[in-house]
This record gives sequence, C-alpha cells and structure tokens, in this order.
Amino acid sequence: MSYKLTYFDVPGLAEPIRFLMAYLDIDFEDNRIGYQTWSAVKPSMPFGKVPILEIDGQVLNQSSAITRYLARKAGLAGIDDWESMLIDIAVDNVHDFRHEIAVYVFTERKNCDAESNSSKIKEITKFYMEKFESIVTINKGFFVNGKLTWADLFFVAISDTLSDMAKIDILEGRPNLQTLKTQVLSIPQIKTWVAKRPEPSVLF
Amino acid sequence: MSYKLTYFDVPGLAEPIRFLMAYLDIDFEDNRIGYQTWSAVKPSMPFGKVPILEIDGQVLNQSSAITRYLARKAGLAGIDDWESMLIDIAVDNVHDFRHEIAVYVFTERKNCDAESNSSKIKEITKFYMEKFESIVTINKGFFVNGKLTWADLFFVAISDTLSDMAKIDILEGRPNLQTLKTQVLSIPQIKTWVAKRPEPSVLF
Repeated sequence: MSYKLTYFDVPGLAEPIRFLMAYLDIDFEDNRIGYQTWSAVKPSMPFGKVPILEIDGQVLNQSSAITRYLARKAGLAGIDDWESMLIDIAVDNVHDFRHEIAVYVFTERKNCDAESNSSKIKEITKFYMEKFESIVTINKGFFVNGKLTWADLFFVAISDTLSDMAKIDILEGRPNLQTLKTQVLSIPQIKTWVAKRPEPSVLF
Repeated sequence: MSYKLTYFDVPGLAEPIRFLMAYLDIDFEDNRIGYQTWSAVKPSMPFGKVPILEIDGQVLNQSSAITRYLARKAGLAGIDDWESMLIDIAVDNVHDFRHEIAVYVFTERKNCDAESNSSKIKEITKFYMEKFESIVTINKGFFVNGKLTWADLFFVAISDTLSDMAKIDILEGRPNLQTLKTQVLSIPQIKTWVAKRPEPSVLF
C-alpha cells in the first residue's frame, strides 16, 4: 500500500499521524508544502485543510480520525469499547487545550495587547496541564489505564507544537508528563523517526 | 446500569448523545441545568465543560467520544476499521463546520458589524453544506457507504443547533440532506424521543 501525507513543513496536527506511521513501520511520502504554495493547493483539499493522508490514492482528511485508524492497526486503541472511549476522551481533552490556545494565538491576539494574551494563555496552560499531569500520575505514567495508548503518542507528538504556540514550555513543572515524553521518544521506531525528521520551519 | 446526562436545556452537543441513548432504548436521567446555576456547577466538571455522561457514577466528558462509544454498542460505528474511520471523518467535518460558525457567533461578532458577520456565516454555511449535500448524494442518502451510521444521527441531532447558531435554515436547498433528516427522525426510537423531549430554552 502507498501512503502520502500532505501538510505544512511543521509538526502540528500531522505529527501524531507521522508518529503512528513510524510506529507501524509504514514507509510514507512526507509531502511538506510551503506557505507560499498553500493558496494554490488549498482548493484541491477535501475541506480546504491539511493534513490529508492518501492511502493508495484515496484522499482522507481529519487528523484525529486518521490517527485513530492507524492506532487501531497498531493495537494502541484500546482492548474494548470502554477503553477506546477513555483514549478518545484523553485525546479530545488535549485538542480542547489546543483549540483554546489557538483562539488567543490566532484570533484574540489581534484584538488585545500582548500582555493580556500572554496572561490568558498561561492561565489556559496551567488549567489543562495540571489536569493532564494529575491524570498521568493516577494512571501510572500514561493517559489511560497504566499502559501505552495512542493518547500518549498523540500528546507527545503535539507537545512541541503546543509549547511553540503558547510560547511556554508546557511540560515545565510536570515531571510525570516529562517522563512520559522521554518514554515515548525512546520507543525505537519513534526514536528513529525523530532523529531523521526534517527540522521544521518556524511557524509561530 | 444507570445513565445520567448533564447539559444545558438545549439540544447542542448533548443531542447526539440523547439520540444514541434513545436509539439504544437506554433509560437515562436528562439533567438540564440553567445558565444561572452553571457557574456553580462548572468547577465540578472534569474539564469545566458539559455535556458529561455518568455511567454507573463514572463521569465521562467529551461528547464525540461518548457518542462514538454508544454508536459502537448500537452497531452504527462501522463494520471494520476503515469504515469506522470514514464515519469519524464525516463527524469531524461537521464539527469543523460548527467550530467555524462558532468563531463568528461567539468571538468575531464582538469585533465586527452584524452585516459582515452574517455574510461570513453564510459563506461558511454554503461551503460546508454544499460538500455535505454532495457527500450524501454520492453515498445514496447517507454520509458513509450508503447505510445508516452514527454520522447521520450526529448530523441530524445537531442540525437544529447549527441552524439556530447560523440564523439560517442550513438544510434549505439541500434535498438529500432534508430526506436524510426525515429518515432519521422517522426511526421509531428517535421519533419517540423527539416527541417527548422538552422544548429547549432559547440559546442564541
């Protein structure tokens, strides 16, 4: 099967997909488009957005749906419907964090002064990261049920983007999440991927 | 098992969960909180948000994760991993539509004149609804693979909220989506639920 991932030259929402494909030893084309060419490419995307993944030419959008599909193939999506739901909840809680920061980074910052935005982003980061640290502490170092799932890979894959957006090291003062990150990055396939992936363009 | 759903007295993000519980003949407590009491209730929510569903006292947040879980129980979540992904993609495309309208309803409207916002919402609605109508036409009246899945129940359950937010009948001029809505609302358990559900408070 052929896999072609299209996204910008940054980790962002594509990185969880890249992590899962690396974990699965899937050889994929990592098609990175420049912001200059985006306006020309955008109309050809299913809903005008990236990432998309083409599997044998079939175009798929929606990063969470794609990552969940790959996670099922990897055996990282739960042993039953209940556990799958707990993983989905964890992932969507991280997405909510991303959304709330994004509102300040992309929308509100146009309307408020930098100091006020920075203070709001710090407040959002504290709110979510305290809860995530607590969840990972209760769950023996992982997001769900004391074992590695795609919620962990998703969080680690997107954590650098979240820190870049917030302009804060979101893991500072969160020892259990730091340990989780170290652990995920030491998985051999992930380690190999991170070592060989391109240095991203600066986004924020 | 006991099921207690907590949300505002509106359809919104809880209605897909209510539709799925109705479809499954689950007898649930439909706990509707007033906006006046929300500030008192908010801190006790897992991430400060609703809906939450309590199953035998275990508190679950994230409406999509909960709806997907119930859909699996109902046999509406796909026959294999691939189909499950196509359903997840359809649902998240509808969520993107909701998010994009919400930005204008809740954020941008503070900063622009009403006419400009209304024009932007119309543009977003046209963009998404044309695509959804086309998808449903290609898929023989449903969102995925020519058969009823939770993507259809999700869309129909949330469609009134989307119309209320946009202040447009989003189904106008979309005959296949209208037929889908009629079909979903004629499923006996859904029909019974819609007939007995409370008249919602006015939200927008």
